[in-house]
Amino acid sequence: MLFPSQVSAINIAELIGAKILGNKDAFAKGINEIHKVEVGDICFVDHPKYYDKCLNSAATFIIINTTEVTIPTGKTLLVVDEPFEAYLTIVNYYRPFTPQQTAINTNAIIGEGTVIMPNVFIGNKVKIGKNCIIHPNVSILDYTEIGNNVIIQSGTVIGGDAFYYNTKKTRDVWYKKMQSCGNVILEDFVEIGANCTIDRGVTASTIIGKGTKMDNMIHIGHDVVIGKNCLIAAQVGIAGATILEDGVTLWGQVGVNKTITIGANAVVMGQSGVTASLEGGKTYMGYPAEDATIKRRELVWIKRIPTLWKKIME
Amino acid sequence: MLFPSQVSAINIAELIGAKILGNKDAFAKGINEIHKVEVGDICFVDHPKYYDKCLNSAATFIIINTTEVTIPTGKTLLVVDEPFEAYLTIVNYYRPFTPQQTAINTNAIIGEGTVIMPNVFIGNKVKIGKNCIIHPNVSILDYTEIGNNVIIQSGTVIGGDAFYYNTKKTRDVWYKKMQSCGNVILEDFVEIGANCTIDRGVTASTIIGKGTKMDNMIHIGHDVVIGKNCLIAAQVGIAGATILEDGVTLWGQVGVNKTITIGANAVVMGQSGVTASLEGGKTYMGYPAEDATIKRRELVWIKRIPTLWKKIME
Amino acid sequence: MLFPSQVSAINIAELIGAKILGNKDAFAKGINEIHKVEVGDICFVDHPKYYDKCLNSAATFIIINTTEVTIPTGKTLLVVDEPFEAYLTIVNYYRPFTPQQTAINTNAIIGEGTVIMPNVFIGNKVKIGKNCIIHPNVSILDYTEIGNNVIIQSGTVIGGDAFYYNTKKTRDVWYKKMQSCGNVILEDFVEIGANCTIDRGVTASTIIGKGTKMDNMIHIGHDVVIGKNCLIAAQVGIAGATILEDGVTLWGQVGVNKTITIGANAVVMGQSGVTASLEGGKTYMGYPAEDATIKRRELVWIKRIPTLWKKIME
Repeated sequence: MLFPSQVSAINIAELIGAKILGNKDAFAKGINEIHKVEVGDICFVDHPKYYDKCLNSAATFIIINTTEVTIPTGKTLLVVDEPFEAYLTIVNYYRPFTPQQTAINTNAIIGEGTVIMPNVFIGNKVKIGKNCIIHPNVSILDYTEIGNNVIIQSGTVIGGDAFYYNTKKTRDVWYKKMQSCGNVILEDFVEIGANCTIDRGVTASTIIGKGTKMDNMIHIGHDVVIGKNCLIAAQVGIAGATILEDGVTLWGQVGVNKTITIGANAVVMGQSGVTASLEGGKTYMGYPAEDATIKRRELVWIKRIPTLWKKIME
Repeated sequence: MLFPSQVSAINIAELIGAKILGNKDAFAKGINEIHKVEVGDICFVDHPKYYDKCLNSAATFIIINTTEVTIPTGKTLLVVDEPFEAYLTIVNYYRPFTPQQTAINTNAIIGEGTVIMPNVFIGNKVKIGKNCIIHPNVSILDYTEIGNNVIIQSGTVIGGDAFYYNTKKTRDVWYKKMQSCGNVILEDFVEIGANCTIDRGVTASTIIGKGTKMDNMIHIGHDVVIGKNCLIAAQVGIAGATILEDGVTLWGQVGVNKTITIGANAVVMGQSGVTASLEGGKTYMGYPAEDATIKRRELVWIKRIPTLWKKIME
Repeated sequence: MLFPSQVSAINIAELIGAKILGNKDAFAKGINEIHKVEVGDICFVDHPKYYDKCLNSAATFIIINTTEVTIPTGKTLLVVDEPFEAYLTIVNYYRPFTPQQTAINTNAIIGEGTVIMPNVFIGNKVKIGKNCIIHPNVSILDYTEIGNNVIIQSGTVIGGDAFYYNTKKTRDVWYKKMQSCGNVILEDFVEIGANCTIDRGVTASTIIGKGTKMDNMIHIGHDVVIGKNCLIAAQVGIAGATILEDGVTLWGQVGVNKTITIGANAVVMGQSGVTASLEGGKTYMGYPAEDATIKRRELVWIKRIPTLWKKIME
């Protein structure tokens, strides 16, 4: 998430009650989680296991719960007891959840020729392009950006919160919501089926590329990036921060693991479970998803076990 | 889709800018895609591979992009450069998408004793029978026909667009929507769970037979025909143009391929993947779904592989 | 379901036209189906196969279609020709379906600091605690009880009817709805994703325990009881009356059978099918779900079949 304008290290430190170490004169342009962080961003880390990863990331500012680390040149440490709480404080300050009275926010920007059907909800700072059709009972939540010629079927939810929690099993409530401040971007000519859910990025954008078509009841996790001209059949689920390159086809009920990549023009057969990254240009099936030719042969081999048994018994 | 009244070949040719070959005096009663076409219908074909199929179908009128074919006796050819675009022109002329201002269309016909709960959307030319309950946040889209004593749980979408595209990978946008002009028919005593999606037929009807009961989050593709007294558990997905005969039971999360038939009184166990047509009266499981007795034995055989290995090593 | 106040055996008998046998002076506190029945409750049975189970249950009143049974001491038999119809009569009398004109029922109790977003439906006698967020297009149906600090994402349906039918294949319509009179209880700090469905109990409560977090498009069947601090990923389905103990994790697209128990802190890998109860504290995968270590080895063994074949052929 970008701040409306750059913010000084001192102002951030004041907001979260942090001690500043390192470069005190820097300005922050935004805040991001570790997978999406860029130069000028604030990032947070609260577990020693991830200190190095965060310190060596692109982040310019690191909210951290220790002073016992070497500060990388030019970077700023913001030291607090509870970095996760500091993250929430910043998000709530710059992008608070805003209760809304009207179904269509008056600050929404809606392009010429776009039809918004009844019972649609449009949230804070949403942008919708030209010649789109938003069917009844759709929810388009805060900060979503939609291109031109996009069609969204009924009941779909764009921009719900990421399923992303801070876990501490010593607390009475183990999982504490990592409040999402990212958004969803649907590019031109995207079509989304009925009763789908596309979660917003935790701090960055979930993106559906130009011309991609999705059937009904598809779940797209936070920070997923889908390329152009992909075809996704009904009831597919894609977990957080996964990448689909251009021209990928996923048939019905496929499940895709988080933070992996499916290469361009790959095809995944129905009900397959994609547990690891897949090379482009091939067809896959099964759980875990493998080259379909190999998998089909495997199904034949299984059928031969009784014959094997018989041969041995002879 | 039937036209409101019969239309002459000459009028159709004018509408789409076609050259007429063959019988110039015929009248068209409607338009249908190749799987559903009947005598008196217009059909279109744009790929030489399918010319013969379309010319030999029941269609009386064939929109085609060639003159180099033999015209079957009594049939009419409508020759254009882009048959798919001509199809869209006809659909948009006779069944245009109509933006709607009110949640419940004033032309909807709603039977005595039927309860429509708040936040329901009812589209253009919808018919609902007697003593139905339509729960909150349901979307019933254009041309849907619902019988008597039907119950639809909250959040369900009836009559969304078919997931059906004209594909040309030479275009910048590969997939172009084949606009649906069919509808959904729910017969008497049908019950549909919450957050289901039942797509309209592309040019004909998606039908759920009398007394069939569906649990939550079930996806029914375009042109599916489900018989009477079927029982379908949660999260099942059925792809386009498939047929379920009477009394079929599908347990949770089953996936069913397109354009196949499941015979009467068949039972499919949870999470199975039905890739090909199944004979009625039997129980099936697994992926691909097979006779459950055979499949269960297969699971036992797999467990015996280590023993086989040991025996061979001895 | 509890009655508003205790009801005499004679009043119940009058309501359903029953003959009373046994204790005529008892008072009923409520009605429940056989899995949930308690002392003081009415229960019904219509098949000789289940007579004993019902007579020996905790139920004080048994609606039954025979006089040829021994009446357990202190119990009351209510004899009618059609026990199922008598059950429906009682439910419709004490908890009738009430058509509602307004999106938010005026008798709903909504706690301080709770935000109800636009297009939300709130039914009859719903209670919502403090500091909750109910996102747009959510449906919260009759008698639902929600604790404090609960978040429900858009499009979710809480308290839809159970998928529970009286089956008689001799009728024209095989399946007849067992009308639900139970409810849903969401405890404090529960979070539910977008487009989920949580069905009400048939006669008792479906319960989601404190601090449990659910992703999008999850289906929870009637009378399911989920413990505290469970984590359930997208597109999971849990069938009726199943129990998840505390701290269970289910990854995406898992399916869980009805009336089973998953032990505390168990983890089930994505797409697994849980057909039978699982011991707590372990990780499971596959269909049917088994100890993940065993299952992973099995996948390796399958890959060795061709080698086995080769060895035998030698």
